[in-house]
Amino acid sequence: MRMRVVVPFDATEPKTRLAPVLNAAEREEVAQRMLRDVLDAVVTLDDVVEVDVVATAPVDLDLGSSFDTPARVSVDDRPLSDVVNGAISETVGDGESLLVVMADLALATPGALDRLVQSSGDVVLVPGRGVGTNALVVRHPAFRADFHGTSYLDHRRAAADVGATVESVDSFRLSTDVDEPDDLVEAFVHGGNRTSEWLTSRFELVVSEAEGRVTLTRR
Amino acid sequence: MRMRVVVPFDATEPKTRLAPVLNAAEREEVAQRMLRDVLDAVVTLDDVVEVDVVATAPVDLDLGSSFDTPARVSVDDRPLSDVVNGAISETVGDGESLLVVMADLALATPGALDRLVQSSGDVVLVPGRGVGTNALVVRHPAFRADFHGTSYLDHRRAAADVGATVESVDSFRLSTDVDEPDDLVEAFVHGGNRTSEWLTSRFELVVSEAEGRVTLTRR
Repeated sequence: MRMRVVVPFDATEPKTRLAPVLNAAEREEVAQRMLRDVLDAVVTLDDVVEVDVVATAPVDLDLGSSFDTPARVSVDDRPLSDVVNGAISETVGDGESLLVVMADLALATPGALDRLVQSSGDVVLVPGRGVGTNALVVRHPAFRADFHGTSYLDHRRAAADVGATVESVDSFRLSTDVDEPDDLVEAFVHGGNRTSEWLTSRFELVVSEAEGRVTLTRR
Repeated sequence: MRMRVVVPFDATEPKTRLAPVLNAAEREEVAQRMLRDVLDAVVTLDDVVEVDVVATAPVDLDLGSSFDTPARVSVDDRPLSDVVNGAISETVGDGESLLVVMADLALATPGALDRLVQSSGDVVLVPGRGVGTNALVVRHPAFRADFHGTSYLDHRRAAADVGATVESVDSFRLSTDVDEPDDLVEAFVHGGNRTSEWLTSRFELVVSEAEGRVTLTRR
Protein backbone atom coordinates (compact mmCIF):
# COMPACT_ATOMS: atom_id res chain seq x y z
CA MET A 1 0.00 0.00 0.00
CA ARG A 2 1.38 3.42 -0.95
CA MET A 3 2.23 5.49 2.07
CA ARG A 4 2.62 9.18 2.73
CA VAL A 5 4.79 10.18 5.68
CA VAL A 6 4.22 13.30 7.75
CA VAL A 7 6.86 14.41 10.24
CA PRO A 8 5.58 17.30 12.39
CA PHE A 9 8.45 19.54 13.49
CA ASP A 10 8.27 22.14 16.24
CA ALA A 11 10.41 24.97 14.84
CA THR A 12 9.26 27.50 17.47
CA GLU A 13 11.56 27.30 20.49
CA PRO A 14 12.01 23.56 20.09
CA LYS A 15 12.83 21.28 23.04
CA THR A 16 12.42 23.87 25.81
CA ARG A 17 12.47 21.12 28.47
CA LEU A 18 16.13 20.53 27.55
CA ALA A 19 16.97 24.06 28.77
CA PRO A 20 18.66 22.76 31.97
CA VAL A 21 21.44 21.24 29.82
CA LEU A 22 21.35 22.92 26.37
CA ASN A 23 21.18 26.59 25.42
CA ALA A 24 18.69 27.84 22.82
CA ALA A 25 21.05 27.50 19.84
CA GLU A 26 22.02 24.00 20.93
CA ARG A 27 18.40 22.97 21.37
CA GLU A 28 17.68 24.16 17.84
CA GLU A 29 20.65 22.26 16.47
CA VAL A 30 19.91 19.01 18.26
CA ALA A 31 16.25 19.25 17.22
CA GLN A 32 17.31 19.50 13.58
CA ARG A 33 19.77 16.64 13.91
CA MET A 34 17.09 14.42 15.45
CA LEU A 35 14.76 15.33 12.59
CA ARG A 36 17.43 14.39 10.05
CA ASP A 37 18.02 11.07 11.81
CA VAL A 38 14.28 10.39 11.68
CA LEU A 39 14.18 11.24 7.98
CA ASP A 40 17.20 9.04 7.25
CA ALA A 41 15.30 6.12 8.76
CA VAL A 42 11.93 6.99 7.19
CA VAL A 43 13.20 7.12 3.60
CA THR A 44 14.42 3.51 3.82
CA LEU A 45 10.83 2.26 4.14
CA ASP A 46 9.12 0.56 1.22
CA ASP A 47 6.22 2.16 -0.62
CA VAL A 48 6.82 5.70 0.64
CA VAL A 49 5.60 8.06 -2.04
CA GLU A 50 6.19 11.35 -0.26
CA VAL A 51 7.73 12.68 2.95
CA ASP A 52 6.36 15.92 4.35
CA VAL A 53 8.10 17.75 7.13
CA VAL A 54 5.46 20.07 8.52
CA ALA A 55 7.10 22.80 10.57
CA THR A 56 5.29 25.17 12.90
CA ALA A 57 7.37 28.09 11.57
CA PRO A 58 9.79 28.79 8.72
CA VAL A 59 12.94 26.73 9.21
CA ASP A 60 16.19 26.56 7.32
CA LEU A 61 16.34 22.90 6.39
CA ASP A 62 17.93 21.89 3.14
CA LEU A 63 16.75 18.37 2.34
CA GLY A 64 17.91 18.97 -1.24
CA SER A 65 19.08 15.88 -3.05
CA SER A 66 19.85 13.85 0.06
CA PHE A 67 16.99 11.43 -0.50
CA ASP A 68 15.64 9.50 -3.46
CA THR A 69 12.15 9.84 -2.02
CA PRO A 70 10.49 13.22 -2.65
CA ALA A 71 10.80 15.16 0.62
CA ARG A 72 9.63 18.68 1.24
CA VAL A 73 9.28 21.12 4.09
CA SER A 74 6.13 23.14 4.55
CA VAL A 75 5.00 25.55 7.24
CA ASP A 76 1.68 25.09 9.01
CA ASP A 77 1.00 26.89 12.27
CA ARG A 78 -2.16 24.98 13.14
CA PRO A 79 -2.16 22.74 16.22
CA LEU A 80 -0.60 19.29 15.73
CA SER A 81 -3.94 17.47 15.79
CA ASP A 82 -5.30 19.68 12.99
CA VAL A 83 -2.22 19.10 10.86
CA VAL A 84 -2.47 15.33 11.29
CA ASN A 85 -6.22 15.23 10.73
CA GLY A 86 -5.80 17.34 7.60
CA ALA A 87 -3.26 14.83 6.33
CA ILE A 88 -5.62 11.93 7.11
CA SER A 89 -8.40 13.62 5.10
CA GLU A 90 -6.13 14.32 2.16
CA THR A 91 -4.38 10.96 2.12
CA VAL A 92 -6.08 7.95 3.64
CA GLY A 93 -8.21 5.80 1.38
CA ASP A 94 -7.93 4.56 -2.21
CA GLY A 95 -4.97 2.36 -1.37
CA GLU A 96 -2.95 5.04 0.37
CA SER A 97 -2.05 5.15 4.04
CA LEU A 98 -0.47 7.73 6.31
CA LEU A 99 2.50 7.34 8.64
CA VAL A 100 3.04 10.08 11.21
CA VAL A 101 6.39 10.10 13.00
CA MET A 102 7.40 12.71 15.55
CA ALA A 103 10.62 14.54 14.73
CA ASP A 104 12.26 13.87 18.12
CA LEU A 105 12.46 10.08 17.84
CA ALA A 106 16.24 10.16 17.75
CA LEU A 107 16.46 6.41 18.37
CA ALA A 108 14.34 5.48 15.33
CA THR A 109 15.93 2.93 13.02
CA PRO A 110 14.77 1.49 9.69
CA GLY A 111 14.11 -1.81 11.47
CA ALA A 112 11.94 -0.29 14.19
CA LEU A 113 9.93 1.76 11.68
CA ASP A 114 9.56 -1.26 9.44
CA ARG A 115 8.01 -3.23 12.33
CA LEU A 116 5.56 -0.35 12.73
CA VAL A 117 4.48 -0.16 9.10
CA GLN A 118 4.38 -3.97 8.74
CA SER A 119 1.93 -4.24 11.66
CA SER A 120 -1.61 -4.91 10.63
CA GLY A 121 -4.47 -2.83 11.99
CA ASP A 122 -6.48 0.07 10.62
CA VAL A 123 -4.69 2.21 13.17
CA VAL A 124 -1.27 1.24 14.54
CA LEU A 125 0.01 3.20 17.53
CA VAL A 126 3.38 3.63 19.17
CA PRO A 127 2.89 4.77 22.76
CA GLY A 128 5.36 7.30 24.09
CA ARG A 129 6.43 7.44 27.69
CA GLY A 130 3.80 9.35 29.63
CA VAL A 131 0.85 7.98 27.60
CA GLY A 132 1.56 10.07 24.52
CA THR A 133 1.60 8.89 20.91
CA ASN A 134 5.01 8.97 19.23
CA ALA A 135 4.09 7.54 15.85
CA LEU A 136 1.06 6.08 14.13
CA VAL A 137 -0.08 4.49 10.92
CA VAL A 138 -3.57 5.39 9.75
CA ARG A 139 -5.34 3.18 7.19
CA HIS A 140 -8.95 4.07 8.14
CA PRO A 141 -10.25 7.36 6.69
CA ALA A 142 -12.66 8.11 9.57
CA PHE A 143 -10.03 8.04 12.33
CA ARG A 144 -9.17 11.40 13.87
CA ALA A 145 -6.22 12.19 16.11
CA ASP A 146 -6.12 14.27 19.28
CA PHE A 147 -2.66 14.72 20.73
CA HIS A 148 -3.68 16.33 24.02
CA GLY A 149 -2.81 14.57 27.30
CA THR A 150 -3.28 10.80 27.40
CA SER A 151 -3.36 10.56 23.64
CA TYR A 152 -2.30 6.91 23.46
CA LEU A 153 -5.43 5.82 25.34
CA ASP A 154 -7.60 8.39 23.57
CA HIS A 155 -6.39 7.18 20.17
CA ARG A 156 -7.25 3.59 21.06
CA ARG A 157 -10.78 4.70 21.94
CA ALA A 158 -11.08 6.95 18.88
CA ALA A 159 -10.12 4.05 16.64
CA ALA A 160 -12.67 1.74 18.27
CA ASP A 161 -15.34 4.46 17.99
CA VAL A 162 -15.08 4.52 14.18
CA GLY A 163 -14.90 0.73 13.93
CA ALA A 164 -11.19 0.68 13.13
CA THR A 165 -9.00 -2.18 14.35
CA VAL A 166 -6.10 -0.97 16.47
CA GLU A 167 -2.68 -2.41 17.18
CA SER A 168 0.27 -1.19 19.21
CA VAL A 169 3.94 -1.65 18.49
CA ASP A 170 6.37 -2.56 21.27
CA SER A 171 9.55 -0.60 20.52
CA PHE A 172 11.87 1.09 22.99
CA ARG A 173 13.40 3.02 20.08
CA LEU A 174 10.08 4.47 18.95
CA SER A 175 8.62 4.94 22.45
CA THR A 176 11.57 7.13 23.45
CA ASP A 177 11.07 10.73 22.43
CA VAL A 178 13.70 13.21 23.48
CA ASP A 179 12.01 15.76 25.72
CA GLU A 180 14.00 15.92 28.93
CA PRO A 181 17.67 15.75 29.94
CA ASP A 182 17.37 12.07 30.92
CA ASP A 183 16.21 11.29 27.39
CA LEU A 184 19.47 12.70 26.03
CA VAL A 185 21.26 9.79 27.73
CA GLU A 186 19.22 7.43 25.55
CA ALA A 187 20.00 9.47 22.41
CA PHE A 188 23.69 9.49 23.37
CA VAL A 189 23.81 5.69 23.65
CA HIS A 190 21.21 4.49 21.15
CA GLY A 191 20.58 7.50 18.89
CA GLY A 192 20.99 7.94 15.14
CA ASN A 193 24.36 9.04 13.80
CA ARG A 194 23.75 12.76 13.50
CA THR A 195 22.34 13.10 17.01
CA SER A 196 24.71 10.76 18.81
CA GLU A 197 27.79 12.26 17.12
CA TRP A 198 26.70 15.73 18.15
CA LEU A 199 26.11 14.61 21.74
CA THR A 200 29.27 12.50 22.08
CA SER A 201 31.44 15.39 20.88
CA ARG A 202 30.10 17.60 23.69
CA PHE A 203 29.14 15.28 26.55
CA GLU A 204 30.26 12.14 28.27
CA LEU A 205 28.43 9.53 30.34
CA VAL A 206 28.97 9.73 34.06
CA VAL A 207 27.79 7.22 36.63
CA SER A 208 26.70 8.95 39.82
CA GLU A 209 28.25 6.88 42.58
CA ALA A 210 25.55 7.82 45.08
CA GLU A 211 22.54 6.46 43.21
CA GLY A 212 24.14 4.51 40.38
CA ARG A 213 22.27 6.73 37.91
CA VAL A 214 23.84 7.59 34.56
CA THR A 215 23.83 11.20 33.38
CA LEU A 216 25.58 13.36 30.78
CA THR A 217 28.14 16.00 31.69
CA ARG A 218 29.99 18.44 29.44
CA ARG A 219 33.40 17.28 28.26
CA MET B 1 17.42 -25.31 23.59
CA ARG B 2 16.48 -25.94 27.21
CA MET B 3 16.41 -22.74 29.22
CA ARG B 4 16.70 -21.93 32.90
CA VAL B 5 15.19 -18.65 34.04
CA VAL B 6 16.55 -16.61 36.93
CA VAL B 7 14.53 -13.70 38.29
CA PRO B 8 16.54 -11.70 40.84
CA PHE B 9 14.27 -10.09 43.43
CA ASP B 10 15.25 -7.35 45.82
CA ALA B 11 13.40 -8.28 49.01
CA THR B 12 15.31 -5.81 51.20
CA GLU B 13 13.50 -2.47 51.20
CA PRO B 14 12.43 -2.90 47.58
CA LYS B 15 11.72 0.07 45.32
CA THR B 16 12.93 2.81 47.65
CA ARG B 17 12.84 5.36 44.82
CA LEU B 18 9.05 5.02 44.82
CA ALA B 19 8.97 6.46 48.37
CA PRO B 20 7.59 9.85 47.16
CA VAL B 21 4.32 8.11 46.20
CA LEU B 22 4.14 4.75 48.02
CA ASN B 23 4.75 3.88 51.68
CA ALA B 24 7.00 0.96 52.65
CA ALA B 25 4.19 -1.62 52.83
CA GLU B 26 2.84 -0.49 49.45
CA ARG B 27 6.28 -0.65 47.87
CA GLU B 28 6.64 -4.21 49.13
CA GLU B 29 3.23 -5.15 47.79
CA VAL B 30 3.71 -3.61 44.37
CA ALA B 31 7.18 -5.20 44.11
CA GLN B 32 5.62 -8.63 44.72
CA ARG B 33 2.83 -7.98 42.24
CA MET B 34 5.32 -6.96 39.57
CA LEU B 35 7.31 -10.12 40.27
CA ARG B 36 4.18 -12.23 39.87
CA ASP B 37 3.34 -10.51 36.59
CA VAL B 38 6.87 -11.22 35.35
CA LEU B 39 6.54 -14.88 36.38
CA ASP B 40 3.13 -15.19 34.70
CA ALA B 41 4.76 -14.08 31.45
CA VAL B 42 7.95 -16.14 31.88
CA VAL B 43 6.17 -19.46 32.39
CA THR B 44 4.46 -19.15 29.01
CA LEU B 45 7.81 -19.44 27.21
CA ASP B 46 8.79 -22.64 25.43
CA ASP B 47 11.58 -24.88 26.69
CA VAL B 48 11.74 -23.43 30.20
CA VAL B 49 12.92 -26.20 32.50
CA GLU B 50 13.12 -24.24 35.73
CA VAL B 51 12.29 -20.81 37.10
CA ASP B 52 14.37 -19.56 40.02
CA VAL B 53 13.35 -16.48 41.94
CA VAL B 54 16.52 -15.46 43.75
CA ALA B 55 15.66 -13.11 46.59
CA THR B 56 18.14 -11.01 48.55
CA ALA B 57 16.37 -11.92 51.81
CA PRO B 58 13.68 -14.32 53.00
CA VAL B 59 10.36 -13.42 51.42
CA ASP B 60 6.87 -14.76 51.83
CA LEU B 61 6.03 -15.77 48.28
CA ASP B 62 3.85 -18.76 47.69
CA LEU B 63 4.34 -19.84 44.09
CA GLY B 64 2.83 -23.19 45.05
CA SER B 65 0.90 -24.88 42.30
CA SER B 66 0.24 -21.76 40.26
CA PHE B 67 2.56 -22.81 37.45
CA ASP B 68 3.11 -25.99 35.49
CA THR B 69 6.80 -25.11 35.22
CA PRO B 70 8.86 -25.89 38.35
CA ALA B 71 9.35 -22.56 40.14
CA ARG B 72 11.15 -22.05 43.40
CA VAL B 73 12.29 -19.21 45.61
CA SER B 74 15.77 -19.20 47.10
CA VAL B 75 17.63 -16.64 49.17
CA ASP B 76 21.07 -15.41 48.13
CA ASP B 77 22.52 -12.28 49.64
CA ARG B 78 25.44 -11.95 47.22
CA PRO B 79 25.53 -8.99 44.85
CA LEU B 80 23.39 -9.32 41.71
CA SER B 81 26.39 -9.83 39.40
CA ASP B 82 27.63 -12.75 41.51
CA VAL B 83 24.20 -14.38 41.51
CA VAL B 84 23.93 -14.10 37.73
CA ASN B 85 27.49 -15.26 37.11
CA GLY B 86 26.95 -18.22 39.41
CA ALA B 87 23.88 -19.14 37.39
CA ILE B 88 25.83 -18.83 34.13
CA SER B 89 28.52 -21.19 35.49
CA GLU B 90 25.96 -23.72 36.67
CA THR B 91 23.73 -23.58 33.63
CA VAL B 92 25.13 -22.43 30.31
CA GLY B 93 26.53 -25.07 27.99
CA ASP B 94 25.53 -28.61 27.01
CA GLY B 95 22.42 -27.39 25.23
CA GLU B 96 21.14 -25.27 28.10
CA SER B 97 20.84 -21.48 28.14
CA LEU B 98 20.04 -18.91 30.80
CA LEU B 99 17.43 -16.17 30.74
CA VAL B 100 17.72 -13.47 33.40
CA VAL B 101 14.72 -11.17 33.83
CA MET B 102 14.53 -8.42 36.42
CA ALA B 103 11.55 -8.67 38.76
CA ASP B 104 10.36 -5.10 38.16
CA LEU B 105 9.54 -5.44 34.47
CA ALA B 106 5.83 -4.94 35.12
CA LEU B 107 5.12 -4.40 31.40
CA ALA B 108 6.58 -7.76 30.34
CA THR B 109 4.29 -9.86 28.17
CA PRO B 110 4.68 -13.36 26.75
CA GLY B 111 5.10 -11.80 23.30
CA ALA B 112 7.86 -9.42 24.33
CA LEU B 113 9.76 -12.15 26.19
CA ASP B 114 9.31 -14.50 23.26
CA ARG B 115 10.96 -11.96 20.94
CA LEU B 116 13.86 -11.86 23.39
CA VAL B 117 14.39 -15.61 23.60
CA GLN B 118 13.84 -16.09 19.85
CA SER B 119 16.63 -13.61 19.07
CA SER B 120 19.83 -15.20 17.93
CA GLY B 121 23.15 -14.25 19.49
CA ASP B 122 25.36 -15.83 22.12
CA VAL B 123 24.32 -12.98 24.35
CA VAL B 124 21.05 -11.12 23.85
CA LEU B 125 20.56 -7.90 25.81
CA VAL B 126 17.58 -5.74 26.67
CA PRO B 127 18.78 -2.23 27.53
CA GLY B 128 16.96 -0.47 30.34
CA ARG B 129 16.49 3.26 30.45
CA GLY B 130 19.65 4.81 31.85
CA VAL B 131 22.00 2.32 30.14
CA GLY B 132 21.18 -0.57 32.48
CA THR B 133 20.40 -4.15 31.49
CA ASN B 134 16.83 -5.27 32.17
CA ALA B 135 17.00 -8.80 30.81
CA LEU B 136 19.46 -11.01 28.99
CA VAL B 137 19.84 -14.40 27.43
CA VAL B 138 23.23 -16.09 27.85
CA ARG B 139 24.22 -18.94 25.53
CA HIS B 140 28.02 -18.56 25.81
CA PRO B 141 29.58 -20.09 28.95
CA ALA B 142 32.49 -17.61 29.18
CA PHE B 143 30.33 -14.46 29.34
CA ARG B 144 30.25 -12.73 32.72
CA ALA B 145 27.82 -10.03 33.82
CA ASP B 146 28.53 -6.83 35.73
CA PHE B 147 25.46 -4.84 36.63
CA HIS B 148 27.19 -1.71 37.90
CA GLY B 149 26.59 1.62 36.10
CA THR B 150 26.45 1.55 32.31
CA SER B 151 25.92 -2.19 32.26
CA TYR B 152 24.29 -2.30 28.83
CA LEU B 153 27.45 -0.96 27.17
CA ASP B 154 29.72 -2.98 29.47
CA HIS B 155 27.82 -6.19 28.65
CA ARG B 156 28.23 -5.55 24.92
CA ARG B 157 31.98 -5.21 25.43
CA ALA B 158 32.17 -8.21 27.78
CA ALA B 159 30.43 -10.36 25.17
CA ALA B 160 32.82 -9.22 22.44
CA ASP B 161 35.81 -9.83 24.72
CA VAL B 162 34.98 -13.53 25.04
CA GLY B 163 34.17 -13.88 21.33
CA ALA B 164 30.42 -14.08 21.89
CA THR B 165 28.03 -12.62 19.33
CA VAL B 166 25.71 -10.03 20.84
CA GLU B 167 22.24 -8.84 19.88
CA SER B 168 19.86 -6.33 21.42
CA VAL B 169 16.09 -6.47 21.57
CA ASP B 170 14.00 -3.38 20.89
CA SER B 171 11.10 -3.55 23.35
CA PHE B 172 9.45 -0.72 25.24
CA ARG B 173 7.84 -3.28 27.53
CA LEU B 174 11.13 -4.88 28.53
CA SER B 175 13.16 -1.65 28.59
CA THR B 176 10.78 -0.14 31.13
CA ASP B 177 11.69 -1.13 34.67
CA VAL B 178 9.65 0.42 37.45
CA ASP B 179 12.04 2.42 39.60
CA GLU B 180 10.61 5.91 39.87
CA PRO B 181 7.16 7.48 40.22
CA ASP B 182 7.02 8.30 36.49
CA ASP B 183 7.50 4.60 35.72
CA LEU B 184 4.32 3.82 37.68
CA VAL B 185 2.39 5.69 34.99
CA GLU B 186 3.67 3.14 32.46
CA ALA B 187 2.75 0.23 34.76
CA PHE B 188 -0.70 1.76 35.28
CA VAL B 189 -1.37 1.95 31.53
CA HIS B 190 0.60 -0.97 30.09
CA GLY B 191 1.35 -3.22 33.08
CA GLY B 192 0.46 -6.82 33.76
CA ASN B 193 -2.85 -7.59 35.44
CA ARG B 194 -1.73 -7.87 39.04
CA THR B 195 0.23 -4.64 38.97
CA SER B 196 -2.17 -2.57 36.92
CA GLU B 197 -5.22 -3.70 38.95
CA TRP B 198 -3.46 -2.75 42.17
CA LEU B 199 -2.51 0.66 40.77
CA THR B 200 -5.85 1.44 39.16
CA SER B 201 -7.72 0.69 42.40
CA ARG B 202 -5.62 3.31 44.23
CA PHE B 203 -4.63 5.90 41.65
CA GLU B 204 -5.94 7.69 38.62
CA LEU B 205 -4.26 9.38 35.68
CA VAL B 206 -4.20 13.15 35.77
CA VAL B 207 -3.04 15.43 32.98
CA SER B 208 -1.21 18.44 34.34
CA GLU B 209 -2.63 21.35 32.37
CA ALA B 210 0.52 23.42 32.75
CA GLU B 211 2.96 21.08 31.08
CA GLY B 212 0.68 18.50 29.54
CA ARG B 213 2.47 15.80 31.58
CA VAL B 214 0.55 12.78 32.85
CA THR B 215 0.95 11.71 36.47
CA LEU B 216 -0.80 9.47 39.00
CA THR B 217 -2.77 10.84 41.94
CA ARG B 218 -4.52 8.99 44.74
CA ARG B 219 -8.19 8.31 44.21
